[in-house]
Amino acid sequence: MHGYPDDWGTAVSVQAMVYGNMGSQSGTGVCFTRDAATGEDLFNGEYLINAQGEDVVSGARTPQQITKTGSMRWAKLAKVEEAERVKNYPSLEELMPEIFKELNEYQQKLENHYRDMQDLEFTIQEGKLWMLQTRNGKRTGAAMVKIAMDLLKAGLITEKEALLRIEPNKLDELLHPVFDPKALNKAKVIAQGLPASPGAASGQLVFFADEAHKYKNAILARIETSPEDLEGMNIAKGILTARGGMTSHAAVVARGMGKCCISGVGALKIDYKSRTMEINGKVYNEGDWISLNGSLGNIYEGNLATVEPELSGEFGEVMELADKFATMKVRTNADTPKDAKIARNFGAQGIGLTRTEHMFFQENRIKAMREMILSENIDGRKAALIKLLPMQRSDFEGIFEAMQGFPVTIRLLDPPLHEFVPHELAHQKELALEMNVSLNTIIHKVAELAEFNPMLGHRGCRLGNTYPEITEMQTRAIIEAALNLKAKGIIAIPEIMVPLIGTIKEYVAQEEIIRATANKVFKERNDSIMYLVGTMIEIPRAALTADLIAQRAEFFSFGTNDLTQMTFGYSRDDSGKFLPIYLKKGILTVDPFDVLDQEGVGQLVKMGTEKGRSTKPNLKVGICGEHGGEPSSIAFCHKTGLDYVSCSPFRVPIARVAAAQAAIK
Amino acid sequence: MHGYPDDWGTAVSVQAMVYGNMGSQSGTGVCFTRDAATGEDLFNGEYLINAQGEDVVSGARTPQQITKTGSMRWAKLAKVEEAERVKNYPSLEELMPEIFKELNEYQQKLENHYRDMQDLEFTIQEGKLWMLQTRNGKRTGAAMVKIAMDLLKAGLITEKEALLRIEPNKLDELLHPVFDPKALNKAKVIAQGLPASPGAASGQLVFFADEAHKYKNAILARIETSPEDLEGMNIAKGILTARGGMTSHAAVVARGMGKCCISGVGALKIDYKSRTMEINGKVYNEGDWISLNGSLGNIYEGNLATVEPELSGEFGEVMELADKFATMKVRTNADTPKDAKIARNFGAQGIGLTRTEHMFFQENRIKAMREMILSENIDGRKAALIKLLPMQRSDFEGIFEAMQGFPVTIRLLDPPLHEFVPHELAHQKELALEMNVSLNTIIHKVAELAEFNPMLGHRGCRLGNTYPEITEMQTRAIIEAALNLKAKGIIAIPEIMVPLIGTIKEYVAQEEIIRATANKVFKERNDSIMYLVGTMIEIPRAALTADLIAQRAEFFSFGTNDLTQMTFGYSRDDSGKFLPIYLKKGILTVDPFDVLDQEGVGQLVKMGTEKGRSTKPNLKVGICGEHGGEPSSIAFCHKTGLDYVSCSPFRVPIARVAAAQAAIK
Repeated sequence: MHGYPDDWGTAVSVQAMVYGNMGSQSGTGVCFTRDAATGEDLFNGEYLINAQGEDVVSGARTPQQITKTGSMRWAKLAKVEEAERVKNYPSLEELMPEIFKELNEYQQKLENHYRDMQDLEFTIQEGKLWMLQTRNGKRTGAAMVKIAMDLLKAGLITEKEALLRIEPNKLDELLHPVFDPKALNKAKVIAQGLPASPGAASGQLVFFADEAHKYKNAILARIETSPEDLEGMNIAKGILTARGGMTSHAAVVARGMGKCCISGVGALKIDYKSRTMEINGKVYNEGDWISLNGSLGNIYEGNLATVEPELSGEFGEVMELADKFATMKVRTNADTPKDAKIARNFGAQGIGLTRTEHMFFQENRIKAMREMILSENIDGRKAALIKLLPMQRSDFEGIFEAMQGFPVTIRLLDPPLHEFVPHELAHQKELALEMNVSLNTIIHKVAELAEFNPMLGHRGCRLGNTYPEITEMQTRAIIEAALNLKAKGIIAIPEIMVPLIGTIKEYVAQEEIIRATANKVFKERNDSIMYLVGTMIEIPRAALTADLIAQRAEFFSFGTNDLTQMTFGYSRDDSGKFLPIYLKKGILTVDPFDVLDQEGVGQLVKMGTEKGRSTKPNLKVGICGEHGGEPSSIAFCHKTGLDYVSCSPFRVPIARVAAAQAAIK
Repeated sequence: MHGYPDDWGTAVSVQAMVYGNMGSQSGTGVCFTRDAATGEDLFNGEYLINAQGEDVVSGARTPQQITKTGSMRWAKLAKVEEAERVKNYPSLEELMPEIFKELNEYQQKLENHYRDMQDLEFTIQEGKLWMLQTRNGKRTGAAMVKIAMDLLKAGLITEKEALLRIEPNKLDELLHPVFDPKALNKAKVIAQGLPASPGAASGQLVFFADEAHKYKNAILARIETSPEDLEGMNIAKGILTARGGMTSHAAVVARGMGKCCISGVGALKIDYKSRTMEINGKVYNEGDWISLNGSLGNIYEGNLATVEPELSGEFGEVMELADKFATMKVRTNADTPKDAKIARNFGAQGIGLTRTEHMFFQENRIKAMREMILSENIDGRKAALIKLLPMQRSDFEGIFEAMQGFPVTIRLLDPPLHEFVPHELAHQKELALEMNVSLNTIIHKVAELAEFNPMLGHRGCRLGNTYPEITEMQTRAIIEAALNLKAKGIIAIPEIMVPLIGTIKEYVAQEEIIRATANKVFKERNDSIMYLVGTMIEIPRAALTADLIAQRAEFFSFGTNDLTQMTFGYSRDDSGKFLPIYLKKGILTVDPFDVLDQEGVGQLVKMGTEKGRSTKPNLKVGICGEHGGEPSSIAFCHKTGLDYVSCSPFRVPIARVAAAQAAIK
């Protein structure tokens, strides 16, 4: 999960033993210098009298709170009367004030020393306090942001240190949807537990960790969790336990994963045998929908609607800080005005990749697209393309409008044409009727489009170079859209990107069509706009001959998805047959489609950049593969001197911080 | 055809005109200082009185011979009586002895000056001889070899020059089969024409050049040919014309192509409209089989059997000369003892690639192979592999025996497993019965093996690393075979080659299995042999990280077929959809699967070699893609410092000469 290779092994510390189970003057506990769920500056933790550490974390006994505040809060949630609380569940602060005072001093000292939130373990042996361990505490994404900014404001750490405290991937948690307040108002709380890890999660019940994969959204319900459940916990959308406190295995792990978790739900009775759980007499079966609010500890029936989260002030502060230090820009991959807007809100400074083909899959457009593909000649194709032109133009207008003045990189048609045609007989019959041609014509044409290795087949600029009319239509749509916006006073900066270039001649052949079409439109409209023409570098040969390609291309964008496929010779669609075994055997330590392979693919990125700039020193270079949102890959891009990374809208904040960290490091 | 790019254009020489059509004291002719078909040192040519050059080459009139010897030879073939010959078809030597004497002096002077066989054109205007043109004459492969060696022996050129006179690809003609004398004895000669270009060709009749592609083996029959027919002539196996002499368009072009041609067949009547030809009253239709002996000018009915050619003494001398200058060794790609023996006879110094999978496709083996593939578990696979072991072992024994003491590189299983399983329902049913499992099991398993992009899928060392038992079996078969031969006193030098390596860890995982298995066999037999373990470099990433891979690999062999596929991102199976268009548009000048792309793929070959040797200076490096038999690619391999090239058996002589030329240049 964290990418630690097996061969690191595990260290073992051997230390003298103290005993918390030597009677009523002994005990043990776990505590945090700040709140690991929210980041609040509140000393908190749990303890048990006459117990060892495992009794606290296993959830076998209900632990008591360290502080009086914490204890009173807990009692309220657990519906325990004050009198009973004082009698049966007093805080350490109340039960052993001297010990508490000493512990409180230590926790302040340790946090000041390490200048970070500490996760402490202690044991009281016959009235004497022993500190067993201190380490930087695991925390939620929200807590990570708040703690870093609080420590910065307290002058304990510098701006650079605060930024380096942000684990970029954990920001993802803050961007996930939360329950829609309107849905929440109507929803019935069926039980309450401890708010062990915040967030909202709806999913279908499973009772065994190794069955979490059975549902797309699973809620794992367990009496308590153990380390063997780790993988299933990672797959599940949320975790629910009957036993265990805020420092139980389930709670600590879920917070580390940023996954919603409610622990210690007393009303919950789980029957593993029948795969059911019972709450107040009502039985819930495996597969039933349930919703968890990890911030409040509330459990609801059914699948609650969600809305976008509101981002905290600290989140905005972190982003501002990031932009202060980052030298690379962050763009987004967006195919629709909606995605473009989301990304703008997250601070994207342009679009690095708009895939034009996604637009063609829409119900009302696929028909014209199929007509174009199945035409027997250029006239038929042109007639169909004329139908597609206004649709493409209006798509581009929407995207340009959302990106007001920021550059928008638009990739020309890329996928093999057979992806657009129907492969089932029923759909082929339908199409034959619609197009008024024989079924055989359709079947024959579809068969003709089939390829043995479509990834290496008739796609990318090979389409534009064999059917130049497609490039003409797309260029016209882009340029006309930009001119239309100009007329409305909105600046549009199109960067037209030719996909799958392997040779300079392939590029030139496309560029000539693009420039000629643009000039034609300018003449028709008696107006013009600025635009760039450039190319994806996603074929190894393009990186190897980047010095030649840069003679003409005005920008490069590394398409590291395809570049990884071809550099490794791995088909992303088929690698499931051997990649998992390679990862298990340690032949690979990470999936190269997730994390950019700096050793191999990275060489081509570096070579492509250097060779390109050897011809054109100020060549604009970016990356638009999915690696553009992965922190270690972003660090590599910074080191290689890229101008920007481009990633999916929800990864823009992550990329901004990763870019800043790379610059700082 | 010759790889000249369009943008070179055509030059035009403007010169003063002389006239051969000014009456009986005028004429024109074409001649060669040596025989362009056989290489014999015999001045020869054709002329026409009162004619212009185009009358000679177009074949519209039957030309007369320049020399008396030639004229008498021609008369014999054309069945013309001596009296009629002297009257109607006298040689220039007889008709205009003074002019002939002058011409004969010039032809000797010109050949001595240019030190090569000359193709001359002349015109006689009112009794005065004008030389119009001289150039090195086009010739057959056999003539090329003989002329080069004759000029060397005459002291006109040096050994190096003689070698550089050999166009390696043209040697191919000499290696083609000839008609089986036994079949020839029984065959009926239906007509005779001029032996315009030697060789044997059987094929199906076509009457239009642009239809030559309709048959795998086409014989193009035309009244006469013209430059527009060039492409069809290149596709056809043989050419037959009703008109035209030894210097007609058809004859000259066919000799240049090394293609069998019979011209000037008087008995032949071609009817383009009905697509038939008639010879002595018998009608032959398009598609009928016919055989041509271009060396004798004989035409036969039907498809005659062929045998291997006998090679001339001069051929052997060229080969010896080549080995004197070449520094790179030439190995062969051979999967069977038969191919290995052919290659040895052609001078191969080892095998550069034995593809083990081809052995599995044989009728009696595919069953065990399918059993292995369709097994549900490792025990089932191992049981099937035990059946395959003795078959593989005996294959290797045969190959080692054929290669006595020369190294044999054996590539472990490479293709995706789905290539071995049946895809038609009928065959699947058969297999289910044979294997005693349900049809559904077979269907399910076959479907499971299907891949979107098999070229980038579960193949190569990814098989050996997910099913190590395959690597174990193959290693055992290799080592046991080598030990068996050792016991018989025959040295076997196996070089075990791991395919499709992309990372050093993949290689190490395979190497460990190979070494462990070999050591196990050595222990069992209480004997051992020398063997190497190395890898194909065919994935771009392998070339990029060759310095790491060379830490362990003992040799590299560039698999430039796959390397070209992945570096360009072209599937060889699918590129037919765009490569022809790219070639036509000039986006590519040659097919990179035919001629190594030095600009792109070549960078990876160079990088892989340099990086590999930076780790292991004496690393053995070769090439085993089909480029290993292509002269310009061989020159690149020499320059890059490769130790050997490996090619198909019939290209070994070509590679030997190309390697020598590279060293000389």
